[in-house]
Amino acid sequence: MHRLLLLLCLLLLSGWVVAGEGADGPTVVRIGVTLDQIVGIDQKAENFSAVYTLRVRYREPALAYEPTPGAPPFRMLTFAKTMERLQAQGVVWPGMFLANQQGRHDLSRQGIRLYPDGEVHYIERATAVFQAPDFDFRDFPFDSQSFYIRAESLLPDSLFVFELLPEHIGVGDQLGEEEWQVFDSAAVVDTVTGADGLGYSRFSLGFQANRHLLYYVVRIFVPMLIILVVSWSTFRLKDYMKRIDIGITVLLLLIAFNFTLGNDLPRLGYLTAVDAFIAGTFVITGAVILVNVQLRIWQHQKREREAERLDRLARIGYWPAYLVGMSTALLLL
Amino acid sequence: MHRLLLLLCLLLLSGWVVAGEGADGPTVVRIGVTLDQIVGIDQKAENFSAVYTLRVRYREPALAYEPTPGAPPFRMLTFAKTMERLQAQGVVWPGMFLANQQGRHDLSRQGIRLYPDGEVHYIERATAVFQAPDFDFRDFPFDSQSFYIRAESLLPDSLFVFELLPEHIGVGDQLGEEEWQVFDSAAVVDTVTGADGLGYSRFSLGFQANRHLLYYVVRIFVPMLIILVVSWSTFRLKDYMKRIDIGITVLLLLIAFNFTLGNDLPRLGYLTAVDAFIAGTFVITGAVILVNVQLRIWQHQKREREAERLDRLARIGYWPAYLVGMSTALLLL
Amino acid sequence: MHRLLLLLCLLLLSGWVVAGEGADGPTVVRIGVTLDQIVGIDQKAENFSAVYTLRVRYREPALAYEPTPGAPPFRMLTFAKTMERLQAQGVVWPGMFLANQQGRHDLSRQGIRLYPDGEVHYIERATAVFQAPDFDFRDFPFDSQSFYIRAESLLPDSLFVFELLPEHIGVGDQLGEEEWQVFDSAAVVDTVTGADGLGYSRFSLGFQANRHLLYYVVRIFVPMLIILVVSWSTFRLKDYMKRIDIGITVLLLLIAFNFTLGNDLPRLGYLTAVDAFIAGTFVITGAVILVNVQLRIWQHQKREREAERLDRLARIGYWPAYLVGMSTALLLL
Amino acid sequence: MHRLLLLLCLLLLSGWVVAGEGADGPTVVRIGVTLDQIVGIDQKAENFSAVYTLRVRYREPALAYEPTPGAPPFRMLTFAKTMERLQAQGVVWPGMFLANQQGRHDLSRQGIRLYPDGEVHYIERATAVFQAPDFDFRDFPFDSQSFYIRAESLLPDSLFVFELLPEHIGVGDQLGEEEWQVFDSAAVVDTVTGADGLGYSRFSLGFQANRHLLYYVVRIFVPMLIILVVSWSTFRLKDYMKRIDIGITVLLLLIAFNFTLGNDLPRLGYLTAVDAFIAGTFVITGAVILVNVQLRIWQHQKREREAERLDRLARIGYWPAYLVGMSTALLLL
Amino acid sequence: MHRLLLLLCLLLLSGWVVAGEGADGPTVVRIGVTLDQIVGIDQKAENFSAVYTLRVRYREPALAYEPTPGAPPFRMLTFAKTMERLQAQGVVWPGMFLANQQGRHDLSRQGIRLYPDGEVHYIERATAVFQAPDFDFRDFPFDSQSFYIRAESLLPDSLFVFELLPEHIGVGDQLGEEEWQVFDSAAVVDTVTGADGLGYSRFSLGFQANRHLLYYVVRIFVPMLIILVVSWSTFRLKDYMKRIDIGITVLLLLIAFNFTLGNDLPRLGYLTAVDAFIAGTFVITGAVILVNVQLRIWQHQKREREAERLDRLARIGYWPAYLVGMSTALLLL
Repeated sequence: MHRLLLLLCLLLLSGWVVAGEGADGPTVVRIGVTLDQIVGIDQKAENFSAVYTLRVRYREPALAYEPTPGAPPFRMLTFAKTMERLQAQGVVWPGMFLANQQGRHDLSRQGIRLYPDGEVHYIERATAVFQAPDFDFRDFPFDSQSFYIRAESLLPDSLFVFELLPEHIGVGDQLGEEEWQVFDSAAVVDTVTGADGLGYSRFSLGFQANRHLLYYVVRIFVPMLIILVVSWSTFRLKDYMKRIDIGITVLLLLIAFNFTLGNDLPRLGYLTAVDAFIAGTFVITGAVILVNVQLRIWQHQKREREAERLDRLARIGYWPAYLVGMSTALLLL
Repeated sequence: MHRLLLLLCLLLLSGWVVAGEGADGPTVVRIGVTLDQIVGIDQKAENFSAVYTLRVRYREPALAYEPTPGAPPFRMLTFAKTMERLQAQGVVWPGMFLANQQGRHDLSRQGIRLYPDGEVHYIERATAVFQAPDFDFRDFPFDSQSFYIRAESLLPDSLFVFELLPEHIGVGDQLGEEEWQVFDSAAVVDTVTGADGLGYSRFSLGFQANRHLLYYVVRIFVPMLIILVVSWSTFRLKDYMKRIDIGITVLLLLIAFNFTLGNDLPRLGYLTAVDAFIAGTFVITGAVILVNVQLRIWQHQKREREAERLDRLARIGYWPAYLVGMSTALLLL
Repeated sequence: MHRLLLLLCLLLLSGWVVAGEGADGPTVVRIGVTLDQIVGIDQKAENFSAVYTLRVRYREPALAYEPTPGAPPFRMLTFAKTMERLQAQGVVWPGMFLANQQGRHDLSRQGIRLYPDGEVHYIERATAVFQAPDFDFRDFPFDSQSFYIRAESLLPDSLFVFELLPEHIGVGDQLGEEEWQVFDSAAVVDTVTGADGLGYSRFSLGFQANRHLLYYVVRIFVPMLIILVVSWSTFRLKDYMKRIDIGITVLLLLIAFNFTLGNDLPRLGYLTAVDAFIAGTFVITGAVILVNVQLRIWQHQKREREAERLDRLARIGYWPAYLVGMSTALLLL
Repeated sequence: MHRLLLLLCLLLLSGWVVAGEGADGPTVVRIGVTLDQIVGIDQKAENFSAVYTLRVRYREPALAYEPTPGAPPFRMLTFAKTMERLQAQGVVWPGMFLANQQGRHDLSRQGIRLYPDGEVHYIERATAVFQAPDFDFRDFPFDSQSFYIRAESLLPDSLFVFELLPEHIGVGDQLGEEEWQVFDSAAVVDTVTGADGLGYSRFSLGFQANRHLLYYVVRIFVPMLIILVVSWSTFRLKDYMKRIDIGITVLLLLIAFNFTLGNDLPRLGYLTAVDAFIAGTFVITGAVILVNVQLRIWQHQKREREAERLDRLARIGYWPAYLVGMSTALLLL
Repeated sequence: MHRLLLLLCLLLLSGWVVAGEGADGPTVVRIGVTLDQIVGIDQKAENFSAVYTLRVRYREPALAYEPTPGAPPFRMLTFAKTMERLQAQGVVWPGMFLANQQGRHDLSRQGIRLYPDGEVHYIERATAVFQAPDFDFRDFPFDSQSFYIRAESLLPDSLFVFELLPEHIGVGDQLGEEEWQVFDSAAVVDTVTGADGLGYSRFSLGFQANRHLLYYVVRIFVPMLIILVVSWSTFRLKDYMKRIDIGITVLLLLIAFNFTLGNDLPRLGYLTAVDAFIAGTFVITGAVILVNVQLRIWQHQKREREAERLDRLARIGYWPAYLVGMSTALLLL
């Protein structure tokens, strides 16, 4: 959780506009985003797809109107109609874009409520794909990752500044995501400096998630453990050729696991925890086969005593060797 | 079926607007949804894609008109035209959105009939993807699951309340879904409280489905059973090395089954029934190999009597062990 | 072919409007659909994607105009322009929707020709996905399947009735589909009763197709046959352990075939012909292994005569057993 | 190349409108299509996806205008604006559609230049999927295939006839397609007869491509050859059981190759060259195993002389048998 | 890096319009493109998907307006509104298209700011797929590749010439791409000659990237090395049949690697470095098996001395042979 806090603090230091300060100058635009559903997290493409609801509220005096008695306290407008009226009156509006969006976004709800004093309530519910470039797989599958939805102002903060709309910020309680658990979320407003040297308001809703580990335990670790136990049990037999055969079978199985896990991840420039784990197992399995070849040679050469000593060593050292191999691999990360 | 009923009851308790009660106050909006086709159920993404028909009916006096003699008893309007007229007249309309929709929705039919007294009949037929976050795979593949289509009002229930349109609610009889069987469905209208403290009418059409089991019987259970029978039959031979070989083959096959089944499901944080079944088989197969290694050692050491006793035990205990292993695994869920 | 005929007859019985009868009352709308290309048939999702051309013709006196001398005998209109004019004049139009469409439809051509007497010629060429819920895989891969494109009127048959436009109905001669052969097609107009008790005209273009079998022969049956021949040939050796090994290899191969075929089909609630075929092979192969285990035991126990008798039986009974196994499986469907 | 020529000749015979002949009657519409990029060729679906540029030029006197001095020699119009003006003036336009298009087409450029004399220059650059129904896989992977882009007139040739615009016809030099090599292309204009008996102008740009063979050599033929060499080398050993084992391994490998290749192609109703090749190898490998089973039996029966003779025959006949098997298979196509 | 420079130089030589020179004649259009995110690089289809921001600036006196005192120093316009006004005034605009775009492009931001002197600032942020036809896999996986985004003017350079907008050109620092590393980028403006003989301004933003090699090391090279070590270690045993078995296992593993790698790449007409590497290993492994078959034969024939000599040679020559095989294969590229 403190990685997210740290990131948010950095955001704050990079220039947080204290809400309300800009009272007389720029128009205050209040923004709220709720994360309603997670459609999917694609760790290979480093993005996630989500259904969000964005609410934007500000006052545009040019849109004020005389209320009709008996009518509802607001009017409904479509987005297109509102844009038309704003352009016709020559006033600017607090446009924004989702800075880490990828591809299209599909609206399932969009509308504007206009109040007599010119207060504009915009709401948009949509599904979109968001970039999640902060993925760090070094601890995979024990990793926790940060995700963001970011809205950036089209106009500089001399015209519009963002403020949080706390009652409409949050993460839904039925995200429909089974693999990941969201355990923390936070929202901030800060200011980024554009290439033109001006400041632009930015809203960020961040959340952090980690994985359910059961999948990896049930599909990788337990099968591997049982195979290693079986492989070790054959050390109680004196049949060295059999041991070599089983060792080669374990090697082939490790190659298959290796590819299966590799297909889950992007092609990284660094090793993950599970890669190190498999690499360690790999090297030890190779060494175990070499030991057995040596045993077989000594057996052939009738050098029973050397064989007996090495064999006992191998039988006793089997589990420590695997533990040391995996630990070393994990430490070398 | 009673899980669905329970859910619906909870919905009702959370505030069911008795239809008709709001006679003088809010406008009554009658809603009907039929589920026409199921395009697909994606249990990994926990959603389903369906073709539905939504019908909405209410009366807007501002749209009333003088009927032309001889003309049909209604007029046809496009959606765009209607929105234009409603905005021009400054009246609000009973907008709604599909609360559990994901991504875009593709209309294949949309239209409005307007009657002289201002009665508006809206119809929309579309294909959309709906979130199904209630998936619970604990009993997989013996599970039954609940699915919903939910429409939520954009405006509070002081303005519009929903009512069911019973003749246009239901599940079609040719859904085109082979894997799942829909065995129950129901619709309710209730009220949800928004972040602004107001109540909003909500329509829900729910249905429940379970799986055809034949796929799992034919592709998993029967092959596994035959392999176990074959594996057991080798116990009648005294060739312990052969038994070890066959045991390892069974282990590899179980790993393959394990991955095949794992790819069908999201990466859950809990075990499914079939996982437990395979895990039990896995552990017992491992134990069977260890027993045979022991037998081989005793054979080697000429301890025929111990070997004979354990061998008989193994032969007799084989099936009970598998039964106990699987039952224990299933009970430990 | 007679399944299609039967279906069409049922359609007729369910209320065929004899074209022309409604002369004085409802407007006659002539409809033609040609199936131009089959983009793909997705038997798992039970739908097909096709390029079709829809032609609709009727007369709307309100759109009649005074022809300009020297100009072409018709005017061209876009769809949007026509809808605008029809709404402006307050007349209804013979709207329809494709009742078994799924998802969006992509227009590659759309246009209207308007003749001086108000005759409207609408043409639309589009790609869409159509549900094919009548899939029945019991005879797979020897099955033939029915497919439909259905257009249903939006307005009751008191206003508009459909009639066939025979010169524009048919199936193209370059469908671009390799796996299936279309061998029959037909079109009808009938009337369906809506939930409101009114009749609605419906147009259906149906076609039937069956599969090329070569794929299954070359990829499944021939390899299986050769493997069985090889497996049988080892029965001429007295090496029972070898026979058991080969038997287990055949079992594993059958499991692989089983999954490969299973991935081609939806997860059905019944067995297909090829499933039965593989299941039969499966059971017999298991029995063959059990026989060899018995032979090996007798060999071990020096009960040569029993072994010899059973062995001869196995060798002779091998092919009949497979035949009986498969036939029984096929009959049990 | 001559298959393409033949096809084009057939097109010509089916009624080529000699450009210019229709001088006084129908309006001449000049058309050019360039194939700019090949996004992909999907041989399973029998279509290809391409970026093309379509240019259409004709003169519409109703759009002529008085040029402003100093302004560019043309005006720019959007497509929508042009359609609006044409409908407002009640004139017809030379609409056309892409006859073998599938699904949607994505415009990346669309515009119209209008010259003072009413000359209209339309340009459209888009990505679309085109049907390629002429795929013939009999020679696969040595096949060459024909592809088309076809534009057909919406209006009969009494109103508009097409003519080639040679400077804007062609195939780009950076198609971005690695698997196929385009080696020939040509364009023609001809006339097709519609269901209404009228002639409609049609433009076709065709091109032919064949495959790089290296993929098949490196992934299929070389591995198969090495496996066959290895398999043959074991014939120099007298260990018949080993030969049978290796033979079965080769069979399994062939089944794997067979499926891999089968997944590349649609499920055809005929055999391809590579299918025949594999089928030949398959049958011979099966025969080889049967021979070795016979050898083993004779060895067991101490009929050394027969065994020796057959063995020598097998060793010598191995390569000729494979050659004969494959050739026969290829000839039987 | 110098390949990119070379390409850019070629661009320059093909006619670089020196910015500013065209002062009196054509309108200067300043263009900037930033590459904000890489969604994915698809090397099989030879394209990449990216989020880019395009900025275009030029002055159109016809759009100048009288500023309102107190209002922001510019007006906001939608794209549609601007096109409407430009067409109404009959002026041309500096249209452009993305020359190497494929399929649709999804806008996430589009807008125009208009300044009182007629200065137009257009901004567009979108996701699109771009062709990358310069892929050269000869050095795969050690290759570095060039990618471009190209914008070409719709109108000749007598009307509009492009100029760089340096402060808005560049590659973002969080591209969200894990497999590739962007190590260089550059932008140029040049002129291309159209089919009409006129010059058209073109903007190009190019960048170069290479791969992280760890994936290939961990998934291919290390497993292969360990397998080769294990295979070599069995040469210390005198069991030639075992060596042959292990050799065949290595062959099958190489075939699997070969297919896995082949699926990553398009079906090229040339060998890549890793293909050569595997092909070398393949041939040597085949040779190793043949040697062992020979050894086994000599062992059988009691020609111990020859066997001993060849065996020593094989043991010593194993690693040099693999090195020579792979080097030769790499050199033969």
